[in-house]
Formats: sequence, C-alpha cells, structure tokens
Amino acid sequence: MQFHHHGYVSGDPRVAPAAGTGVDRPAELPDETDVLIVGSGPAGMLLAAQLAQFPAVTTRLIERREGRLVLGQADGIQPRSVETFQAFGFAERIVAEAYNIAYMNFWGPDPADPGRIIRTTRTDDYALKISEFPHLIVNQARVLDYFAEAAASGPGRITPDYGVEFLGLTVGDEGEHPVEVRVRHVAGDRAGQEQTVRARYVVGCDGARSGVRTAIGRVHVGDASLHAWGVMDVLVNTDFPDWRTKCAISSAAGNILHIPREGGYLSRMYIDLGEVAADDNHRVRQTPIEDVIRRANEILAPYTIDVKEVAWHSVYEVGHRVTDGFDDVPEGVERDPRVFLTGDACHTHSAKAGQGMNVSMQDGFNLGWKLGHVLSGLAAPALLSTYGAERMPVAQQLIDFDKEWSSLMARKPDEITDAQDLATYYLATAEFPSGFMTQYGASAITAAGAHQGLAAGFPLGKRLKSAEVVRVADGNVVHLGHHAKADGRWRIYAFADAPAAGEPSALADWADWLGSAESPLRRHTPAGADADAVFDVKVVYQQGFEDVDISRVPAVFRPVSGPLALMDWEKVFASGPSTWTGVDIFDERELSRDGVVVVVRPDQYVAHILPLTATAELADFFAGALLPQR
Amino acid sequence: MQFHHHGYVSGDPRVAPAAGTGVDRPAELPDETDVLIVGSGPAGMLLAAQLAQFPAVTTRLIERREGRLVLGQADGIQPRSVETFQAFGFAERIVAEAYNIAYMNFWGPDPADPGRIIRTTRTDDYALKISEFPHLIVNQARVLDYFAEAAASGPGRITPDYGVEFLGLTVGDEGEHPVEVRVRHVAGDRAGQEQTVRARYVVGCDGARSGVRTAIGRVHVGDASLHAWGVMDVLVNTDFPDWRTKCAISSAAGNILHIPREGGYLSRMYIDLGEVAADDNHRVRQTPIEDVIRRANEILAPYTIDVKEVAWHSVYEVGHRVTDGFDDVPEGVERDPRVFLTGDACHTHSAKAGQGMNVSMQDGFNLGWKLGHVLSGLAAPALLSTYGAERMPVAQQLIDFDKEWSSLMARKPDEITDAQDLATYYLATAEFPSGFMTQYGASAITAAGAHQGLAAGFPLGKRLKSAEVVRVADGNVVHLGHHAKADGRWRIYAFADAPAAGEPSALADWADWLGSAESPLRRHTPAGADADAVFDVKVVYQQGFEDVDISRVPAVFRPVSGPLALMDWEKVFASGPSTWTGVDIFDERELSRDGVVVVVRPDQYVAHILPLTATAELADFFAGALLPQR
Repeated sequence: MQFHHHGYVSGDPRVAPAAGTGVDRPAELPDETDVLIVGSGPAGMLLAAQLAQFPAVTTRLIERREGRLVLGQADGIQPRSVETFQAFGFAERIVAEAYNIAYMNFWGPDPADPGRIIRTTRTDDYALKISEFPHLIVNQARVLDYFAEAAASGPGRITPDYGVEFLGLTVGDEGEHPVEVRVRHVAGDRAGQEQTVRARYVVGCDGARSGVRTAIGRVHVGDASLHAWGVMDVLVNTDFPDWRTKCAISSAAGNILHIPREGGYLSRMYIDLGEVAADDNHRVRQTPIEDVIRRANEILAPYTIDVKEVAWHSVYEVGHRVTDGFDDVPEGVERDPRVFLTGDACHTHSAKAGQGMNVSMQDGFNLGWKLGHVLSGLAAPALLSTYGAERMPVAQQLIDFDKEWSSLMARKPDEITDAQDLATYYLATAEFPSGFMTQYGASAITAAGAHQGLAAGFPLGKRLKSAEVVRVADGNVVHLGHHAKADGRWRIYAFADAPAAGEPSALADWADWLGSAESPLRRHTPAGADADAVFDVKVVYQQGFEDVDISRVPAVFRPVSGPLALMDWEKVFASGPSTWTGVDIFDERELSRDGVVVVVRPDQYVAHILPLTATAELADFFAGALLPQR
Repeated sequence: MQFHHHGYVSGDPRVAPAAGTGVDRPAELPDETDVLIVGSGPAGMLLAAQLAQFPAVTTRLIERREGRLVLGQADGIQPRSVETFQAFGFAERIVAEAYNIAYMNFWGPDPADPGRIIRTTRTDDYALKISEFPHLIVNQARVLDYFAEAAASGPGRITPDYGVEFLGLTVGDEGEHPVEVRVRHVAGDRAGQEQTVRARYVVGCDGARSGVRTAIGRVHVGDASLHAWGVMDVLVNTDFPDWRTKCAISSAAGNILHIPREGGYLSRMYIDLGEVAADDNHRVRQTPIEDVIRRANEILAPYTIDVKEVAWHSVYEVGHRVTDGFDDVPEGVERDPRVFLTGDACHTHSAKAGQGMNVSMQDGFNLGWKLGHVLSGLAAPALLSTYGAERMPVAQQLIDFDKEWSSLMARKPDEITDAQDLATYYLATAEFPSGFMTQYGASAITAAGAHQGLAAGFPLGKRLKSAEVVRVADGNVVHLGHHAKADGRWRIYAFADAPAAGEPSALADWADWLGSAESPLRRHTPAGADADAVFDVKVVYQQGFEDVDISRVPAVFRPVSGPLALMDWEKVFASGPSTWTGVDIFDERELSRDGVVVVVRPDQYVAHILPLTATAELADFFAGALLPQR
C-alpha cells in the first residue's frame, strides 16, 4: 500500500483525500449527473467503487430500498471475485469472515441399502489449484458493505441515494446529458416527489425485473424450466457429518446442494422439489417451508436436521435467460451507447452454480473504467461499445454452464450411470466457475496479432494471472499482480532481457524510448498530471534482487510524482533472491528471456504482448485505445 | 470467525452485540467506575479492548488529549505484537498497510576510502525464522485506531473519555471503590471543571512522566546517558539505494539507524549526535533539524538525502529506567493492589530497539484479563498481584537488552573490531526483540511441576507457539493458535492418544471426566452461562481429518451454546489429511503420542501441561487459579 507521497497521512490510508466531484459532494440527488447507476447490487456497487476513482466524473447511484441490504441471496464468491476484491482493497477482510471451501463431497445412495445415503467421493475444491485466492461463501450483503466502503473512501466519495425508485427513461439525441430519467423518492423528506435526472450515461443494475431493460426495449430471451427447487439458509443441529462441507447429495428421495455459510453454523441448502406440471402457474412457489424441511430430511436419511432458525428461504423454478443486447443501440444502428445493462438485468439463471454475483461484478468491472476513461476525456465514446461485445458471450457461457450443472444436479439416481461423473464435471470445469475462463476477443483495447509466444503464461484477453516476484527496494516477496489496484490505470510490465540494470540492453533502449517525447506515456497523459496517472509502468529483472542496483534502473521505472516530487521505489522487481531455487516468474509464466512487454487493462485483462523492440506497435496500440492529451 | 450462533447476523461480524455495561453506556464520565484507565497509549487502549470483552465490568479511559492521536512516535511492531493483533481481530488489516521488514542491512566505512560507506552485510530479518507473523513498522497512531475500534466493537462498547486530565489519586481502605481520582476536564462542555471519580482499580498508562506513578509514590530508577540522538520521520529523494531497507550505518562521521516506514516513501532515521557534556543540561535538545539533517548527510557520504518534508523530529539523550514497583503495594505489606503502572510509566529506554510499544502492549495484555476475571467474580483479587511479579522481570530484560543494543549502535568505527558483530548480535538475540522470550515463573496461574516433557514444543510460561492443523468439520488447514481470540477465556487443548474418535482411549476417559459434575468446567463456569464461557476446550487427533468421524467425538468437544443451543463444529482438529507428508503438530511441537493436555491462559501463555490421566491435578490447578461458581 503506497501513501504519504503527497505529504504525511495520519489516518486510515485506505481513505483517499476527496478530490474533484468528491469535494463537498451534494447529499441530495442532483438534476444532472454524468453517470446514473440504477440499483445497488454487486454490479452497481462495484461500478460506484470504480467510478469513485475518477473524481472528474459525477456519479450517482439510486436504490429503491431505504438503506443497506440486510439479507442478500447470493453467497458464492469465486476466486476471480476475491482477486477483484484484492484490487479494491478488501480481500483480506472478507476472506477472514467468509466460509472457505476446501472440499466438495459427493453423497449417493448406499448400494447395500438405497434408502440411506453414504459419502461416495471427497474432492479438493478447484480453487486450491487454480489461484492464490480462495473460493468463498459469504452473504452478498457483506460484499456490498465492502464495496460501499470503497466507494465512499475513493476521491469521488460516492454514496448511494437510497429510497429513490426508477420510473423510466428516454434517450434523446441532443445535448450533453441526453438520457432523461424519471425517478420517485420513496423515503426521506422528499418521499412521494418525482424528479427528472438528466444523465450522460445510465447503467441498469436493477436485477432480473429490470426497469431499465424494459425502458430501452431490450428483451430477456430464454425459457423457464419446469423443475422446482427450495432454498433455505438455516441454523440446525444435525448428525449429518458434512454439515460444514460443501456437498452434492443425491438420493432416491431427491437431490440437495448443500453449502456451508460464513460464521461456523449456518448452511444453505438447495432442495430438489422435482418436476412441476406445465400448468402449475408458479403455484409451487407457495410450498411451505415445513414441506421443504421435510423433503430435506427425506433426502438426508438416515441423517436428520433439527432446524432451529430459518434465516431466509424461497422456492423457485430454474430459468435461463440472456437479454438480446447489453446496451441501448439497436443492431445495425451506428451510434455510441448511452444506456447499459449489467448482472441479472441481462442474464438470469439458477443460483446453484454460485456464479450470478460473480459474473455481475465482472460486468461492472468491465464497464466502470470505460465510463471513467470516456468521461475523463482519456478515451473516445466508441470504447463503450466494447462493453456489450465483450460481456454478452460471457453471459451465454454462463447460461450454458449453469444449464448443464443444473441438469446434472437434478438427475434421479437411476439416471446416474457413473457415480463419479458429477465430481469429474466439477473438477474438469474448474476454470469457468472460478471465473478465469473469460477471454475477450480482439478489439481496440485487446490486440490482435500479439506476440503470445513471448509470454505463453499470460494468455491475451484473459486476466493477468499473478506470480510472485521480489521488490528490489526492500526485498519483500510480493505478488506482482496484487500491485494492480482498481484505480482505473493501465499497467505496462516490462520483463527485462538478460543484462543487468544499467548495462546496455533492449530494456534500456525501450525505457529510453518510453521516457522520450514520442512515447505513449507523454501522448496520453494529461499535462499537469502525475507521470504515472494513466500508465503504471513496472519492470521485472531476471537477476536476483541483490544484484539489481536500483540507482542504475532507468528513470521511467522510478517516476517522481505528487506535490513533493518524490521518487516511487515500488515499480522495480526481480525474479527472486540470488539464492532462488524455485520457479521464477520467467519460467512460471513462460516469459521470453529476451524480454517482453505485457500491457494490462484497468480491469486486469491482458491487452497486448510485444517484444521490447516493438515500440511503434505499442504506440499504435495506445493510439487506437486512447485519445491524445497534448 | 464464528458468529450467527445467537441467530442470523447481517452486519459486520466483528461488531459484537452490546451487553451488560455496554448497553446504553453513558457518554459522560461517571463518578464511579470499576476500572479507570489513565492514558490512551498502546497499553491503555489494549486494556480497553480487552475489558470490552467483560461487559459485567464498567471501564472508563481518560485521556488529556482532545481526540485521537494524530502522530505517534513509536513504530516498531514485533511479531509477538502482530500475534496479539490477530487475537484482537485486526492483524490482516494492519499488516496490509505496514512496512514489512524482510532484511536488515549493515553499512560501514569502505576500507579503501573510509570517508565513504559501503554495504557490508545483508541479513534476513529474524521474524522470518521465528514466527508466522511478520516484523512490521507502522505508526503507533494506527495501532491505537485499531484497538479503539476493537474496544468500541466489544460487548462493553468502550470509547475513551478525551479531554480529561489526571490530577491525582488517593487509595483509601474502605468501600467498594477505594481509589479516589481527581480529574479536570480540559475540553468540551465541561472544560475547566474538576471531578472526583471513585474506582475499584486504576491503571496508569500515562507515559514516562506518569502522574499515577507519582501519586502512588513509585520511583523511576536508573540513569540518564550523555549520548544524544536526533530522530526524524522524513520524505526525501536520495541516491542511497537502501532507503527502503532497514539499515544500521556506521561511518567515521557517526551512526544512523535507518528504518523505512509504511506507505512506500517515508523513513525514520535515528542520527547519532555524539556525547554531550555532563553540564549540558539538555541544551542538546535544542539542536535545529537542519543540523540533524546535515549530520545525516555527513554520515551517509557519498550518498545524500534531499529532505522534502519532515513529518516529525526530536532530539533526546538515551536514558534507562525501571520503576521500583508496578503497583501500589509497598514491599512487605500484605494486601491486594488497587493501582497499576504499565508501559512507559514503569519502564523507559531508547526507542532504537523498537521495543517500547510492544512491551507496553504485553503489560496491558497481562493485566487486562486479570482485572476482567476479578471484577466478573471468576477469580480472587490475589490474582492481581501476579501482574507486577510477572511484568517487572520483563521490564528489566528490556532495559538490559536496550542498553547493550544502544551501546553497540553508538560505537565509533575504531571501536568496532569485527564488522559483523552488530549483525551477529541482531540475529542471535532474535527471540527477545521478536517478543517471544518472555517466560513467566510458577504461580497460581502458571503451574510448577508441569509435565513439560509431554509437550516440549510448548514451553511452560511462554506464549503458545501456534502450528497448523486441519479442522475436521470442513477440512480447512488452520493455525490452532489463531482460534484463541482475546476474549478473556482459558484454553484447554487435548492432544489425543492413538485410538480413533469413538474408540476406547485415554482421551475418551478424560473427556468423560471433563464433561462430568466434578469437572473444573462445571465448577468454574457460572450457572446459566454458555458451556464454553470460561473454558474453550479443543481436541486434536493424530489421525488424518478424513479418518475422524465427528459424530463419534466426545460431546465435551462439541458443546451447544447460545439461545438456539447450536452445536459448535470448530473445536475438533486433526493433525493433517491422511495423505499428509509434512511435519504434523505432534512432531512439530514434540507432543506425546500418548496424549497430553495443554492449558493456556487468556493472554496466550502456557499455564500447564499434563497427561490425560492427571484429572485431579488439572482440577487442583484451576481450583487455585479460579473461584468456584456453584
């Protein structure tokens, strides 16, 4: 964590000084705003936290509820989300309070006595193998609390406008704030009043019954299913030995997906209620909780649960829908989008794969920096079209995965020919449910024709998978990727060729160029801004850290910034101590020993891979992605 | 982290529901209190955080300052303190914002050109080898912030009474609140008013010029030195390559101890100003900061620092003093103490060994639970005499260590015969400056005649050194010791003999006894309290966790508690998975394979070690330490 570089900070370094629109931010919802976010779910709150890093932008978030969410339904947190929390500064805190999934166990009928279940398989959770971050279960309400804190602590000081209901919107074609949004105050002093808010951009984070979606004429496409599930968060006493382990339980009486929750006592159970008639007309949703509990006990036999408290419960039929577009631009029309849909507003599915909140947050992470860039004048509005282009395929993948997982989970015992295949599927698909399979295609912000072979372990279009390096200034072993905070900046990692710091090398030539007048750093960083305001440039040497003389490292890796013009010591890394015997980052990520430049987007996705000599290509890439600033 | 067991919790699980004296706690300082803490430094704030866990007790903390400390002087955080922070619930947060010491480098004159310094030695910091917790540098003000949060979040809801000055006290010999304390309000509505507060106990945490110490007639014994140091926290630009590494620098021009601070830019420098004349009369303290900076540059030659901001600076002569007693009971008098001294109020020394704040916090940790126990009726007031008996020897050790370290640091180059000996001393003494050398002697709360050979890795009287185990209920690898929160409870760890859970064994017999009517659990736990309100009993099996059938584990390790009478799943551990190939806790801590019982005090010190068969001895120990409750 870096601070003090604008002078000594006494208080919590996580709270940035207010700046720009964050200074004296009005408590009342204004009539005009740059961005209006509708809904304070995971996508909306992440967007607020991200846009709080762009204090040139005015962002308001309206939420019909009168205050903080008390009880959320989502609870599955994939490793990619924890990685995202790390970028927003609260991973260590939420990990400490969450349930950490170490194993997933599978239970099925005892062949000797099919009326009783037995444990058939115990599998390590996939997270252990795929990431340095764990796979967690924690209530959505707490995730929102942490994003709210991040939004309020950023220089833009964003807090939600609670008690404000979305009524409708129209997108005009004139003026700077062409989206006219009608809202109604439903709480507080202005309760009952309607207001019109004019915005440059509106983001619908308003859930499966999204009013924003309706207002822009987008349609949720897909089908309802005729299979019903009961879900409950319960505090129980039980003799079921795996109450604190994630389990898929399949018995003659039906199926349960059992997920322990944070705190050591609570668990969530998804209980198969079987097929419903085509003319059921959602009557199954009236199933009393007592029936759901009885069904759970039938499935668990010979074990029983004695329910002491039901914290939350519901009954639903599985449905799978994707919206026909993620913004307000009809197909075939050539204009930049003004309204966007995220999360459940554009993809709905069953809860059981634990994906919904995660994919929603990545929707927000994808869109947030793009809005920040466009509204800060760093990029042209065309950047915003990449949001739908990148996120719609992810939503479709999600639906496909969830359909398959839901069907596997809902099978009857006589449909199961191989008792292991659920476990096999669970492990084989680890990359998707962990959140790491997303790979964005070529666009202005993700290069085609990159030199992938120079950095095979950083697949282009996928998020940068971090690895450990040693920080030269202090010898600490740190994760290179964890330095990349969600601050809206681009990262440029220069992995050096073999010569030591200060010796003639391809790296030294590249660094000279990057520090020169024709560099993209100069071109795309606003005059008067800190040297690293838009680009965070880091170098990793092949030597042990004791053999890197930091005073001979090129100046572009040691920029001065802030009112005191202090030098930054934390952009220079080495592959290990000189006594290193493990796998260093060059080997671990298959990086060329001739050096390689890896460009990473503000949302942590690999945007370009280039040899150190390809300076013109690098400049061209940024010229296509960003606007010139001088 | 365990919660929800009193019903579903929506908000931050670190905030406990208010209870007892924490419900509607008065904002105004009352005229009567159980405990009055004087001073909000590290010892005082830790005490407040600890006593917030005892909501039967009324605790007030007065502080002359009008609010939060803005700029603290202490900054060294030894691993034992981080371990303590873990017990108070904020280790992960403070680690994230602190400077983490990985190396200590040593610089001396270049033999070829003695006017220039060169790096002579690079040593791994001792913390890496001695603890799972790091050695940190972070401003005392932030440590106090975190303890303040813990104090305010505990059931006792303790917040400091700022703007209240201590004037004096008298200890009477009658009534329930025999200590009469005179205070003056120096801020707020009551500014200028004097008030008399009657307390059962008073703790002087009021620093080196302690008014409480004076009031009880205790004397600071020791000597001032005639060697002066300048100290400054500075933001600089420099070509000195180790600006972000802890260094001892010795040159012809003098000595510097250089300590990087949190945030990536700031460092603290202790700069040797040399001997002062006997009749100097503290005139050296008027040395201008410019002179200190010039001296620093002379010592650092050929390197230079260009100081951009001085966050804090001071000049002092090293002094070493210990108070002649840590409470108000004169030698030879037989009564229980009423007034206690902690921290700088009873031991002062140089800052350079980075010990002061750490030893002060352990003073508070030692005293806090004892006050809580006595005032909650769990233990007799005689327990309080152990505070001084245990902590005075630690203070003396501290002074001895600091004298030696200060002298070594102040040597002139021609006094240094072996350039390595400072590095050698630094590493050889690692256990003391890490905070792990404290070993309390035999008393009512630390057994004599314990069976140390059964658990050689848990030295009696030292703090329990944690090791990793596997939690049976969910298969997570966890640190056994990290479950021991600073909640004022005793821990009893039963390490099982070889038979599996449910089989006849010494463990099973011991567990039967512990659950029986003659058990110390029954005897010392108040009627109506949760079964684990006073004793937290855990078991560690020798088997892999998959081979422990939790439903066959004795009930005493799965107590029910709270209004819902929910079973606790998190007291049963195993030494590893069955495929374990590493060193398991039995081997790592040299625990008897015939089983062993390890008793740990609320401040994490090992109090007793017993075979599973020694039930009478265990009962006797607790009968001597605690009062019967029924």
